[in-house]
Amino acid sequence: MNAPLQYPTEVASDCATTRETVLARYQNVRNQTEALCQPLEPEDYCIQTMPDVSPTKWHIAHVSWFFETFLLIPFLPGYSVFNERFDYLFNSYYLTHGTPFSRPQRGLLSRPTVAEIYRYRAHVDEAMRQAIMNLDESQWEAFANRTVLGLNHEQQHQELLLTDIKHVFAFNPLRPVYHEAKPTTVPTHSAAQQWVDYPGGIHWLGNTGEAFCFDNETPRHRVFLNDFALASRLVTNGEFLEFMTAGGYQNPEYWLSEGWSTVQEQGWQAPLYWEQLEGRWWSMTLSGMRPVDEHEPVCHVSLYEADAYAHWAGKRLPSEAEWELAAIQQAIKGNFRESGQLHPRAINTEQTPAQLYGDVWEWTQTAYSPYPGFRALAGSLGEYNGKFMSSQMILRGGSCITPQSHIRPSYRNFFYPGDRWQFSGIRLADDR
Amino acid sequence: MNAPLQYPTEVASDCATTRETVLARYQNVRNQTEALCQPLEPEDYCIQTMPDVSPTKWHIAHVSWFFETFLLIPFLPGYSVFNERFDYLFNSYYLTHGTPFSRPQRGLLSRPTVAEIYRYRAHVDEAMRQAIMNLDESQWEAFANRTVLGLNHEQQHQELLLTDIKHVFAFNPLRPVYHEAKPTTVPTHSAAQQWVDYPGGIHWLGNTGEAFCFDNETPRHRVFLNDFALASRLVTNGEFLEFMTAGGYQNPEYWLSEGWSTVQEQGWQAPLYWEQLEGRWWSMTLSGMRPVDEHEPVCHVSLYEADAYAHWAGKRLPSEAEWELAAIQQAIKGNFRESGQLHPRAINTEQTPAQLYGDVWEWTQTAYSPYPGFRALAGSLGEYNGKFMSSQMILRGGSCITPQSHIRPSYRNFFYPGDRWQFSGIRLADDR
Amino acid sequence: MNAPLQYPTEVASDCATTRETVLARYQNVRNQTEALCQPLEPEDYCIQTMPDVSPTKWHIAHVSWFFETFLLIPFLPGYSVFNERFDYLFNSYYLTHGTPFSRPQRGLLSRPTVAEIYRYRAHVDEAMRQAIMNLDESQWEAFANRTVLGLNHEQQHQELLLTDIKHVFAFNPLRPVYHEAKPTTVPTHSAAQQWVDYPGGIHWLGNTGEAFCFDNETPRHRVFLNDFALASRLVTNGEFLEFMTAGGYQNPEYWLSEGWSTVQEQGWQAPLYWEQLEGRWWSMTLSGMRPVDEHEPVCHVSLYEADAYAHWAGKRLPSEAEWELAAIQQAIKGNFRESGQLHPRAINTEQTPAQLYGDVWEWTQTAYSPYPGFRALAGSLGEYNGKFMSSQMILRGGSCITPQSHIRPSYRNFFYPGDRWQFSGIRLADDR
Amino acid sequence: MNAPLQYPTEVASDCATTRETVLARYQNVRNQTEALCQPLEPEDYCIQTMPDVSPTKWHIAHVSWFFETFLLIPFLPGYSVFNERFDYLFNSYYLTHGTPFSRPQRGLLSRPTVAEIYRYRAHVDEAMRQAIMNLDESQWEAFANRTVLGLNHEQQHQELLLTDIKHVFAFNPLRPVYHEAKPTTVPTHSAAQQWVDYPGGIHWLGNTGEAFCFDNETPRHRVFLNDFALASRLVTNGEFLEFMTAGGYQNPEYWLSEGWSTVQEQGWQAPLYWEQLEGRWWSMTLSGMRPVDEHEPVCHVSLYEADAYAHWAGKRLPSEAEWELAAIQQAIKGNFRESGQLHPRAINTEQTPAQLYGDVWEWTQTAYSPYPGFRALAGSLGEYNGKFMSSQMILRGGSCITPQSHIRPSYRNFFYPGDRWQFSGIRLADDR
Repeated sequence: MNAPLQYPTEVASDCATTRETVLARYQNVRNQTEALCQPLEPEDYCIQTMPDVSPTKWHIAHVSWFFETFLLIPFLPGYSVFNERFDYLFNSYYLTHGTPFSRPQRGLLSRPTVAEIYRYRAHVDEAMRQAIMNLDESQWEAFANRTVLGLNHEQQHQELLLTDIKHVFAFNPLRPVYHEAKPTTVPTHSAAQQWVDYPGGIHWLGNTGEAFCFDNETPRHRVFLNDFALASRLVTNGEFLEFMTAGGYQNPEYWLSEGWSTVQEQGWQAPLYWEQLEGRWWSMTLSGMRPVDEHEPVCHVSLYEADAYAHWAGKRLPSEAEWELAAIQQAIKGNFRESGQLHPRAINTEQTPAQLYGDVWEWTQTAYSPYPGFRALAGSLGEYNGKFMSSQMILRGGSCITPQSHIRPSYRNFFYPGDRWQFSGIRLADDR
Repeated sequence: MNAPLQYPTEVASDCATTRETVLARYQNVRNQTEALCQPLEPEDYCIQTMPDVSPTKWHIAHVSWFFETFLLIPFLPGYSVFNERFDYLFNSYYLTHGTPFSRPQRGLLSRPTVAEIYRYRAHVDEAMRQAIMNLDESQWEAFANRTVLGLNHEQQHQELLLTDIKHVFAFNPLRPVYHEAKPTTVPTHSAAQQWVDYPGGIHWLGNTGEAFCFDNETPRHRVFLNDFALASRLVTNGEFLEFMTAGGYQNPEYWLSEGWSTVQEQGWQAPLYWEQLEGRWWSMTLSGMRPVDEHEPVCHVSLYEADAYAHWAGKRLPSEAEWELAAIQQAIKGNFRESGQLHPRAINTEQTPAQLYGDVWEWTQTAYSPYPGFRALAGSLGEYNGKFMSSQMILRGGSCITPQSHIRPSYRNFFYPGDRWQFSGIRLADDR
Repeated sequence: MNAPLQYPTEVASDCATTRETVLARYQNVRNQTEALCQPLEPEDYCIQTMPDVSPTKWHIAHVSWFFETFLLIPFLPGYSVFNERFDYLFNSYYLTHGTPFSRPQRGLLSRPTVAEIYRYRAHVDEAMRQAIMNLDESQWEAFANRTVLGLNHEQQHQELLLTDIKHVFAFNPLRPVYHEAKPTTVPTHSAAQQWVDYPGGIHWLGNTGEAFCFDNETPRHRVFLNDFALASRLVTNGEFLEFMTAGGYQNPEYWLSEGWSTVQEQGWQAPLYWEQLEGRWWSMTLSGMRPVDEHEPVCHVSLYEADAYAHWAGKRLPSEAEWELAAIQQAIKGNFRESGQLHPRAINTEQTPAQLYGDVWEWTQTAYSPYPGFRALAGSLGEYNGKFMSSQMILRGGSCITPQSHIRPSYRNFFYPGDRWQFSGIRLADDR
Repeated sequence: MNAPLQYPTEVASDCATTRETVLARYQNVRNQTEALCQPLEPEDYCIQTMPDVSPTKWHIAHVSWFFETFLLIPFLPGYSVFNERFDYLFNSYYLTHGTPFSRPQRGLLSRPTVAEIYRYRAHVDEAMRQAIMNLDESQWEAFANRTVLGLNHEQQHQELLLTDIKHVFAFNPLRPVYHEAKPTTVPTHSAAQQWVDYPGGIHWLGNTGEAFCFDNETPRHRVFLNDFALASRLVTNGEFLEFMTAGGYQNPEYWLSEGWSTVQEQGWQAPLYWEQLEGRWWSMTLSGMRPVDEHEPVCHVSLYEADAYAHWAGKRLPSEAEWELAAIQQAIKGNFRESGQLHPRAINTEQTPAQLYGDVWEWTQTAYSPYPGFRALAGSLGEYNGKFMSSQMILRGGSCITPQSHIRPSYRNFFYPGDRWQFSGIRLADDR
């Protein structure tokens, strides 16, 4: 039996506990959220193009509501709620806290205006500053830990804000540009795919929970794996086009039953955001419409498409345990939001397997379920992760719009197998 | 056989044809549209709370598209289209002109922004000004007549803009106020209802089409009516509450079959915008939430509710011919948009029947269908009215948000029998 | 002003009142219902292929329920209800009588079996026989009149039973045959269409109500008509194919707005039951699949298609008043159910206009609404017709599956403008 | 590491290979199917009360189609297909074989009749008899193995036939009785629940595939388990009523997010088929309506309800590996279909854990996914199991309507977490 591998120590740095460090981190994350909104007009903040998408202004209000509800009201004596009605409007899904406003109708509210929501943010920021600096020492640790949770929560909404505004802009026939991507100096080519072998046996999976992590990453526990191999890089657009050309979207034999039904009902012919214009494929990006680059990783595919591609290729998707075993052996580097591209890019490293972190979330074949011995957080925050453990699938590794500091090897993202509007892609695996 | 009654001569004044008059009228109507938008924030312009509602910014772009498409492009040499994509975005339903953007998704577009749409309006206004002042004399009459159509069209959208923003604000849990109503000096009471008798026989119905009117008001033709009576005023909130108290919404015997199904499926218990708070009824108005005033005319009821009320009361709704016969004998006065109330008000006149004009559109028992010999306008403008002549019902008389200059005795409004978001109410009729 | 035309005297014969005559008629109509079921297997009785269709066994139970509920229970002392639960299962839509079982789910009930329902029929028949022969004289007239209503009701369900079983068999990929049509000796050709002119003026419309008729045919009243013309025969399949070939189903300019939406949503390309097989058109009939005969009247078209065809042809549909004015001048002869064809056939008469009666129900441009002074029947039977007076359109003249004795010039049939599963067709009209 | 446990040897007896044995087993299974249909009327065979339910006649035709398609056509020279159209009508979901008739519309077909489908069965049976007895020796093994698959397939449809007819009868307001249950001599009480501990470590999971099993039970592989405990018996109606009384269906804190949404949308207040009549709970059974017996295992609950109950009880559901580890140590005995009860019954054994086999399928917390190294069957039969490996959950152990010979410890059943019409119940598990 293999010895449990240690998690890289930089993960622990997450858990800063001096008041100055927490305040700095708080301000940093909050500023990043607002920076992401810089390119937007007031009208852009209001739109919800499908039930899963939230308007930008809802995101930036909701993350403030989170601090108000779970930090300021319980911890800060005399805190004055900004607006009593916001608890109804900006609660997402904490049913034991209260009944939230209907999710698919978030885009039907013009008020509060964007300006008012920024005043709300400022009100919360000022109160958080006071709480961080002045809270009684007896409460500090609990408060600091929960603040770190709130900041990780806000980082998740930073990513959602970008996936959602991309959906909003892609829906619009005018195809607006969110930002002009930084020119990249990366050579655009795709290395030949190779296989990296891993030995099976008993391995440890999950996080110890000492540094910050979400409850669903714990407890650390043992799993038995067979020998396996991972592809040395992500599946590229060029490879996915081969699948398309081979009739991938027309042939039920490659597909899960639900996947094939979805292909038929939705009329899928290509990844989300792809359009064929005058004989060639284009796709919508946060920098507007661009020709599909065959060297870049394929993105905006569902689990169904990932699984069908793997089936067609005679391979399979990795399990989350296999992925984590590989990832834990690498430093957390890659094409994250900090690169300023906000788009996956062709491989530019000799490391294998490459692209484990960043670029696109990698679908696994593992359904999202509780780790053995899982205990959700106490109180309403227990609804954060645990209640979603049905019908969803695990994705791993972060994407080009994930903040680098947000990711760990043990990080479990989860979406429905038919979801495509996240930056999700494909890495192949195989038995050995 | 009765001699055909003459329409009041002020109707003809509609059809002004000097260039200065047309320009003045153009600028007046266009300014009114913009004035109606004054209370709105950019976010308010974007919202579509149900498929029938259009976002404010769509309304103000669409009416400009109407001038661009049907006036400027065909008539003004060298006219430069503001944005080629707008033809797709702001065409409403002119299918022979082109395929319009999906109506229920108008609220999913953040771009063009409100500011850009105002630039579009300014561009069109300047071109219209040039065309009105400089167009060749040979084209003037056709151009002037169609401009008057465009202005009447814009007035219709002024009314829709208000009904739609009311829906948007009523949907919002914050119940925003559109404007503070002018204080009214009208005594708030409801006179006892009386009956006004009319003799039957052959009567002329419809407009001669000499002054401006819509195609669906023509041709003028004869109908045979039995003797009948009209109620001297509109049904009030107080009277409608009696129907509610008597179990009106719980008893199928009063209802059309489709009406009862709608009551069940929609859970109707009261007119639209009514809410019971701590034991009394309130309703949403353009001035915010207000207690229901029992002397005011009931408003925001469907044809189904109007018909059920009439059935319960042992009466019926008037036919459109009966209504027009009564209306043609009166001057066009009443509580129109110009009163600044934007809300129906209790009767304040000795005239009987009172409230024929203004306050609320009056549902008739007449289905919307072509008059004998009806011919739609030529070309795409033929789609303006004729293609809607199925399944809808006629309403007459204008409302408190209709511009007074927009209304004629022969004016035919039409909505589906289940529609409630217009300012629609009830006048009873009876046989004699 | 024209003198009121008299209705043909054979209509009055409907209203037989001796006990023997009523019993004979009762047994005759009931036997016809059962004869219509002869070709069916028990499985065929159970199927509901769309919400508007009812299973055969529901029809034959419901018509018995009608006699039990409206005749036997109120009139026959000591009548023993066959099964208490049937009141719930076989009430159609009499809400003031009780809550009926969900209409779209009628096809989900295997029990009661067909055999049990026939026992129910026999039970009702025996009780009706006793009531007819022995009821106290004081009640006889009321009972006899209502029995005639019940028999007309059963005749309506005879027609529905056939339209519904046709839908059931047409849905089945095996395309079962209901019956082999009698060979017809009628020459199959279509005479050239001509126009028959009618003078306008005041005309009487509706039934006096002295002989049996439905409440919606009364009261007799005056209407004013312009001069008009009716086509000398029905529109044929060949003519409708010209419309199809000319792009009729692809061009919105001919269509009502709702009609065009329906064409798009339902993918209509031809009348209901038409299929293109190896380059030619076939249609499903009660005698199985047959090639479309271009001389036969087009059938199974909606009001939308009828209106679009008329629009394309530069004509219009008749109003119900125009149709009745023409029909009242003819004897009631034509291709009714008694011909044994159960299918419309090519014109075979010199009479003009031909085919007013039988073959296909003729869509009119008139919305179904109450005649001036209309009063529904008292009690729950008041729901029979009156509550459906919204959103539906009038059809006139009966069809090839209507019993001849069921039809009158004043008979008003009504369906939704998108309905196609009735035997409905097109006659053109024009202004003069 | 634990040594791999051996599967009980009686499982291997499944794989009989002499021609006589196969024929006997074939005839036995086929006869059982027909025996299950004995209580049904022709009308009962036709009904589909929801998309998941298939009409009885579809089941009995489909299992014959399976033999025709996968055995007779490929193996029996000169086999004459009974009806060419049946391939379309009775293919269930083998898309690589052909396009099947629409599943939710199976209940809309009256033809072929029940009698014709029995003729189809007889035709297939005769051809199978000939093939079994006369097939060339070179093909025998492949044919025999696939025949065993076909018989296991038919046994699955025997269970579905009963679950589906129960749904059909429960939907019917007359609540028909399928059969009168045999009187049971079992004392009706529920023993106190105890816990049975199991040691963790590496365990083997899955079937070797030497005797018959489905592809999804292979390959045999190792898993690592923590120490755990299983409840000594199933959760009873009485215990589930405590959950209900404690507000279980009203409190979101116990529920998965999807589960709570389902509770709201479907209005769930109790297990499927429970009704409260005059203050006490009844439930529909195959023997008609019966009072809920608090000692019997709760049945017809979804995974959502099972999980919510476990959450409320402070426990969890077992994983499928935990369940199999316990089950492999027991003989396969229990309340199966052979008991003639067709209903779960109170515990009547001293064995612990009791009721692992029979009574109700036990929901596990394990999502249905491929075992490591899984390979589906070749050809269209590869669609049998593999393509359903998303969004569904594993159930184990068989039920009171499962044939005993059909079950193995490694048997994996799977349904969607919201499904309730199967005989599914709850066993609790806990960590140690």
